[in-house]
Amino acid sequence: MPASAPASPLDQQLVRTEHDLLGDRDVPADAYYGVHTVRAVENFPITGTPVSAHPDLVVALAAVKEAAARANQELGLLDAHKADAIVRACAEIRAGHLHDQFVVDVIQGGAGTSTNMNANEVVANRALELLGHAKGAYEHLHPLEDVNAGQSTNDVYPTAVRLSLQLAAARLLEAMEVLRAAFAEKAAEFADVLKMGRTQLQDAVPMTLGQEFAAYAVMLDEDRARLAEACALLREINLGGTAIGTGLNAHPRYPATACGHLSTITGIPFAVAGDLVEATQDMGAFVQLSGVLKRIAVKLSKTCNDLRLLSCGPRAGLAEINLPPVQAGSSIMPGKVNPVIPEVVNQIAFEVVGNDVTVTFAAESGQLQLNAFEPVIAHSLLKSLAHLRAGCLTLAERCVSGITANREHLAALVAQSIGLATALNPYIGYERATAVAQEALTTGASVHDLVLAKGLLTKERLDEILHPDNLARPHTRVTAS
Amino acid sequence: MPASAPASPLDQQLVRTEHDLLGDRDVPADAYYGVHTVRAVENFPITGTPVSAHPDLVVALAAVKEAAARANQELGLLDAHKADAIVRACAEIRAGHLHDQFVVDVIQGGAGTSTNMNANEVVANRALELLGHAKGAYEHLHPLEDVNAGQSTNDVYPTAVRLSLQLAAARLLEAMEVLRAAFAEKAAEFADVLKMGRTQLQDAVPMTLGQEFAAYAVMLDEDRARLAEACALLREINLGGTAIGTGLNAHPRYPATACGHLSTITGIPFAVAGDLVEATQDMGAFVQLSGVLKRIAVKLSKTCNDLRLLSCGPRAGLAEINLPPVQAGSSIMPGKVNPVIPEVVNQIAFEVVGNDVTVTFAAESGQLQLNAFEPVIAHSLLKSLAHLRAGCLTLAERCVSGITANREHLAALVAQSIGLATALNPYIGYERATAVAQEALTTGASVHDLVLAKGLLTKERLDEILHPDNLARPHTRVTAS
Amino acid sequence: MPASAPASPLDQQLVRTEHDLLGDRDVPADAYYGVHTVRAVENFPITGTPVSAHPDLVVALAAVKEAAARANQELGLLDAHKADAIVRACAEIRAGHLHDQFVVDVIQGGAGTSTNMNANEVVANRALELLGHAKGAYEHLHPLEDVNAGQSTNDVYPTAVRLSLQLAAARLLEAMEVLRAAFAEKAAEFADVLKMGRTQLQDAVPMTLGQEFAAYAVMLDEDRARLAEACALLREINLGGTAIGTGLNAHPRYPATACGHLSTITGIPFAVAGDLVEATQDMGAFVQLSGVLKRIAVKLSKTCNDLRLLSCGPRAGLAEINLPPVQAGSSIMPGKVNPVIPEVVNQIAFEVVGNDVTVTFAAESGQLQLNAFEPVIAHSLLKSLAHLRAGCLTLAERCVSGITANREHLAALVAQSIGLATALNPYIGYERATAVAQEALTTGASVHDLVLAKGLLTKERLDEILHPDNLARPHTRVTAS
Amino acid sequence: MPASAPASPLDQQLVRTEHDLLGDRDVPADAYYGVHTVRAVENFPITGTPVSAHPDLVVALAAVKEAAARANQELGLLDAHKADAIVRACAEIRAGHLHDQFVVDVIQGGAGTSTNMNANEVVANRALELLGHAKGAYEHLHPLEDVNAGQSTNDVYPTAVRLSLQLAAARLLEAMEVLRAAFAEKAAEFADVLKMGRTQLQDAVPMTLGQEFAAYAVMLDEDRARLAEACALLREINLGGTAIGTGLNAHPRYPATACGHLSTITGIPFAVAGDLVEATQDMGAFVQLSGVLKRIAVKLSKTCNDLRLLSCGPRAGLAEINLPPVQAGSSIMPGKVNPVIPEVVNQIAFEVVGNDVTVTFAAESGQLQLNAFEPVIAHSLLKSLAHLRAGCLTLAERCVSGITANREHLAALVAQSIGLATALNPYIGYERATAVAQEALTTGASVHDLVLAKGLLTKERLDEILHPDNLARPHTRVTAS
Repeated sequence: MPASAPASPLDQQLVRTEHDLLGDRDVPADAYYGVHTVRAVENFPITGTPVSAHPDLVVALAAVKEAAARANQELGLLDAHKADAIVRACAEIRAGHLHDQFVVDVIQGGAGTSTNMNANEVVANRALELLGHAKGAYEHLHPLEDVNAGQSTNDVYPTAVRLSLQLAAARLLEAMEVLRAAFAEKAAEFADVLKMGRTQLQDAVPMTLGQEFAAYAVMLDEDRARLAEACALLREINLGGTAIGTGLNAHPRYPATACGHLSTITGIPFAVAGDLVEATQDMGAFVQLSGVLKRIAVKLSKTCNDLRLLSCGPRAGLAEINLPPVQAGSSIMPGKVNPVIPEVVNQIAFEVVGNDVTVTFAAESGQLQLNAFEPVIAHSLLKSLAHLRAGCLTLAERCVSGITANREHLAALVAQSIGLATALNPYIGYERATAVAQEALTTGASVHDLVLAKGLLTKERLDEILHPDNLARPHTRVTAS
Repeated sequence: MPASAPASPLDQQLVRTEHDLLGDRDVPADAYYGVHTVRAVENFPITGTPVSAHPDLVVALAAVKEAAARANQELGLLDAHKADAIVRACAEIRAGHLHDQFVVDVIQGGAGTSTNMNANEVVANRALELLGHAKGAYEHLHPLEDVNAGQSTNDVYPTAVRLSLQLAAARLLEAMEVLRAAFAEKAAEFADVLKMGRTQLQDAVPMTLGQEFAAYAVMLDEDRARLAEACALLREINLGGTAIGTGLNAHPRYPATACGHLSTITGIPFAVAGDLVEATQDMGAFVQLSGVLKRIAVKLSKTCNDLRLLSCGPRAGLAEINLPPVQAGSSIMPGKVNPVIPEVVNQIAFEVVGNDVTVTFAAESGQLQLNAFEPVIAHSLLKSLAHLRAGCLTLAERCVSGITANREHLAALVAQSIGLATALNPYIGYERATAVAQEALTTGASVHDLVLAKGLLTKERLDEILHPDNLARPHTRVTAS
Repeated sequence: MPASAPASPLDQQLVRTEHDLLGDRDVPADAYYGVHTVRAVENFPITGTPVSAHPDLVVALAAVKEAAARANQELGLLDAHKADAIVRACAEIRAGHLHDQFVVDVIQGGAGTSTNMNANEVVANRALELLGHAKGAYEHLHPLEDVNAGQSTNDVYPTAVRLSLQLAAARLLEAMEVLRAAFAEKAAEFADVLKMGRTQLQDAVPMTLGQEFAAYAVMLDEDRARLAEACALLREINLGGTAIGTGLNAHPRYPATACGHLSTITGIPFAVAGDLVEATQDMGAFVQLSGVLKRIAVKLSKTCNDLRLLSCGPRAGLAEINLPPVQAGSSIMPGKVNPVIPEVVNQIAFEVVGNDVTVTFAAESGQLQLNAFEPVIAHSLLKSLAHLRAGCLTLAERCVSGITANREHLAALVAQSIGLATALNPYIGYERATAVAQEALTTGASVHDLVLAKGLLTKERLDEILHPDNLARPHTRVTAS
Repeated sequence: MPASAPASPLDQQLVRTEHDLLGDRDVPADAYYGVHTVRAVENFPITGTPVSAHPDLVVALAAVKEAAARANQELGLLDAHKADAIVRACAEIRAGHLHDQFVVDVIQGGAGTSTNMNANEVVANRALELLGHAKGAYEHLHPLEDVNAGQSTNDVYPTAVRLSLQLAAARLLEAMEVLRAAFAEKAAEFADVLKMGRTQLQDAVPMTLGQEFAAYAVMLDEDRARLAEACALLREINLGGTAIGTGLNAHPRYPATACGHLSTITGIPFAVAGDLVEATQDMGAFVQLSGVLKRIAVKLSKTCNDLRLLSCGPRAGLAEINLPPVQAGSSIMPGKVNPVIPEVVNQIAFEVVGNDVTVTFAAESGQLQLNAFEPVIAHSLLKSLAHLRAGCLTLAERCVSGITANREHLAALVAQSIGLATALNPYIGYERATAVAQEALTTGASVHDLVLAKGLLTKERLDEILHPDNLARPHTRVTAS
């Protein structure tokens, strides 16, 4: 395996010369990338974050290049020994090697051309090495004519992006399941803890804390289903469409063949889009995925808002639950512990919502046969996927699994609640129940005592109506005894 | 049928008195709404747009009230003659009557309570009339105890919103099909018109104008599928969950019974959510729908950008197609005709994208067992649905169906294009093709002439390579003759 | 004054015929608008909301038309009797008449051309009447050649929009002052009410409720200053730039002259932009205003979130303050009162944030010498201004002014608070204060008692440190007695 | 100076033990950070990007810590030798040292507490070294009791963020000036190049290419003014407010003293906010800055859209200008050169617009006395500032400065334009000009020839009307000769 360490200052004086449309250009002798990559690095000094920051994208590019090489060989358009070397180079990259050679900025002009060029050059130079040639000896194996044979950035790059998103989404799905399970476990633990439910931040009617936490688990389950659906849309690819989807310079059997190889390599059942012209310019699947990630973010944020609210205290708040302390909360307030884990998840959510707007703008700005702004779409989505995953795992492990309930406090709140009046509606009517509720609020008396004092219900019947088993789930009317 | 015209100044001096938690309050004698509605109108003087501006929502509320009454009757919780009167009143509303009585502002606090109260009151008073009673004689039939029996705003309102969105979405789906068909018709008409494709606004390789328009049709087809999927998620309802999803005060069989009646009334196969606590607070289906509407908007906007760009001219632009003139374009420039129809669709798209952010914010802001901000979510989505529908129909009828192509101009652009060099890659290689392209650009010569002058290919073979049939679709390599 | 009532069905059969680039077209005989307006109404059946829904915009259009007529007369380009009739017609419109004749949809293609045409036609036909001619007798006074003389939509419309925004912003500024005063009044009322401050929803250190409410007042004051600054940017206009800012067909002295008249008419000190080409295409001032409206919305929403949180209860929440009840809160929960006024303001804020994204998209989409999407920018901003105004007034009058404090409860929370430990930092050190805080939390003891029990401070000194006057404001260190 | 290199694997086995509220914890022996930082790194494994990725923020934290130490010394609250060591440590950090010790993730919970703790610990340990003590020997100088004396995260962190934003904004202002100058230079170069202006992508009236480029320069100038104004708002700080703005534990003269030192250290005239409670929770200045950055982004994006559109070609587009080639444009299309520099700036703009939404969400989500989400606000704004700066410089240097005009092509387009008819309005009237324009469009004849053929104007007068000097700027009416 190649060492692929960053060039030392000394090495950088050792250069090879490559050539492109703009003329000759020195390239570090030990670089696997070539002239096109060097130009791109100079042209896009934007974020300082290289494409290698998204390993899924690097792996995906290698998978697509490998699939293309296998297809070209099968169709008789690429020599077996060239194809073999390309396939071996790609396999190394897919295994995690040479990622540091993907040096172009994540935000780049050119619709991904520079990323594709970067991949072509790294694959070509590693393949040349494997064939016993020097880097840059493109007469033996050429980045464009061989590695990119029958391809265009405009079909390779979108396909690689779609693959990379699925790889990242698969890990997010796992993290969401971890979080879901953490909530479900708490739901079971708190199944018998009666508490006041609230609507519009006002005391409403009783429920169990278990029901509250179960809802968070169910939400995650539904969101996982939506994410899986959005991923399915990413499996339709335009490989073989070449420049604009007309397939110019591609063998008629190339799309299906390359797609088949990509499916085999990745284990993901890709399909060739029905209309390659449409598929080449279409950002629909990215917008859809972004919308679903926003949905996940919004609901995760709402859940974290709830956790922060329910743990508000310790003395001057709701104080229903306790989040496990994970660090000192304040540089000035001794003993203060803050809900820092939900807070960081909130911020991830805000970032994801912003990323969605970025994706929306970029998608809308495509023109005619191509969207030139796919790099920022890919960057935004890969960030959202990775950060949401980190957020779910962190929330599960450092917060949810350690939550405890203040059971006595919760029970006391239910007992003194005016919301109990609601349960009396079917028995004494909305208008009389309202009068009881208002009197309870004004006098500080309990609903229970007022109902008895006014002789509205017998104690026996009242107690049955207000029995926890009847309060937190539907039941048939309590009949007069 | 009731006249239900707005009250004249004279009538308004004739009032009846109703009562609520805040005390007595006069209500116009001829109003079908009551005290709760009057309070809400005073409390929310925000947009001036009443709920009746969304007829789908009014119809949906009536359908839910009808389903609830039928269920309550079936479960023995409501007298037949009351249930019958309620059902008849609801049927009238569903048929389009009494909509002017839904007077609460579309943006309102209270999680939809005021809209639900408005519906309860209108239904009750119309039912009272049908039973031969005066409006306001609630001792015979009560807005809350009868019309709202076993219900809460928190299950009725979300269910009605979900129904209304499906009604509106069905019409959008029809409009999208009209637009899709218009594009498909043009795709057929332009199937043989060769033109230059463009990527990144630079001349790329040839395609047909038919392929370009077919892509727009395909996009709409895919978006229709996504919209239908998003609608399916709206069919899961929380009817019977009452205040917070625990079903307090609801009969155990009420959810399934009411849901069944709602399905029968509407012809839409609704299902009761598996976890009513989760369903009551969950805005996921709205966020998902909003994301899909944004997707539709973004792609529609991109399409309109293309139409405006392709028709840029008449003399100093691309001038590939002509949009039908629908009005004079300028108050100062004689004879100027502008792409006003695509422009208005662009603006609808911008509005929908903004609405999506509104929905996102509102959804994230829900707390604990309820989202209090559902009214602005409903309002935003109903606006987006209606305006997108109007945009699709207008674009189809006033623009796409009248588009013509400037065929000679398009053919000339292909002939003189440097992009033809791409088609030579497989025959003379990327590097020599690049040299030809650069020389063509510098000297103004055509690619065709340069290739012959340099003897790179025979004329016979070159002509076959550049034959339109070979340029716009994949083909096997042209062999040397 | 003209009656200007909507035409009855009978009248509509009485038509006059007008002519444009597309041919002849019937116009209702009693309509003040003409053929261009009729076309536009047919072309843009989008929202159903006519331009007249924004009276500020109609008034502004009339002001600009009047200024132009006066300038043209002054420069010898328009006969005095024509100019006089135009001026009189415009004055009527500015006084509120004929608004129902502005019938084009608020969302329209054509960069405002149809709105400008609508204004030209209404002014022309009313001016014709004033001159004793029939409507449509344009040979005597022409909508384009006279009313629009020396103008283009591209300078008239942006100027009118800028004026209308200032009219609407002035009313918002007043409403914000009403709300600020309401908060300031409560700040004075609650100046001596000690309570626990909270950071990250955790008990922090004491403050007064007055300080809390004063902050809301200060925020509004700062936001008012920002809004005033944003309005100042709207005073730079491009009147006289005509089609693209080059001033083609405009007299060299026209810009300054027309601008001067507009300033006189409106009492607002307008200035001609330094570069009219730039000014014609520039949406910067609109984006800036939208950003400031978003700022106002965000802070107003945060304030409403606080009000809802502080009034959370009545028994199972913070219950620090009480919002005045303005309507029954629930159709199922008797006696429940919800924070519906803050909730409606939250929703206005969400709408404004969405509108900002709409404005952003529309502004970015301008091309070359013009932004064709100004109508949706104007519509969005005018909505935001009007709804924010309604929200501020409603919040002040129906909520803030009636807020009461639960003083005993607040005092009790401070006394039992662990946050008091912070005040001991300077005297016993952060680490010992932390130990006290943790013990208090674990044992339920008060910080006060623990400090005394441990002999860390004398009672006298401790009481002085924890004196309300010392807790809620900076003070020099309490020295050992 | 300290070496401050990352610890080698061997070193990491050498640890020291520190203590916090959660108990003992090992810290790498050579780390300048301490236990609080170690906890935070474990708690926030989100983006992998440490705070040190924002050097401006690290420098700003050191400046604030230095100002606080100087103030505390001046007020007699900190020993001179401790203060001196702290000041020296801060000076080193401000000079760029020890930045690699700021290791907490940029997205973190806790309202910036962990970043403040990180700063406290690094300053303390470096100060300890300077005093001849071992790292961790906090009994000699304590991160919280000395470095953080009289401070709270809640006043230190916002102040540091405000300072860092100004440092970054200053560099953006410089970059905008570079870009403005590049456009201005081109405006001068193209001052005499007549071309067709376009509105709504349709040929409008003539202008010069110089005017077009001058507009871009003017836009940048205006945006620079807005950015400077937004920065001025950042100079109001809450230093001395401590935990919630009440100044608990701060000396009454501390705010003014510390603010004065910070102004001296930075050369920026800071001022203490009038209401520290309000200032502590207020995100207004950040939202305002974000709105202005969005404004800049939107206009920059529009400008780049124009550059891409004007250079559309080379043969099948507008082809008015040529962007300098900076890299090969395609992996498949030989000789294709794409507008990659404008494209990357577009993407930066989309990112900034998304960041604005993130900031908006985070700002709205603050609660009561603090906004816990300031870290993501700071991160978003610092990214936007840095990327916009990179975009401006790249656009100026790699694109605008090398733009050339296709002068003959532009002149030919003007000559054959129908838009010339507009210039005839004042002489032959709108209706006759319209007829000429329509005939020109239909027949392909030139406006010039048609006017002469119809005898509408003499050739001499027509030529003067259409003289370039008269077309691109206002002028008095050409009189009949």
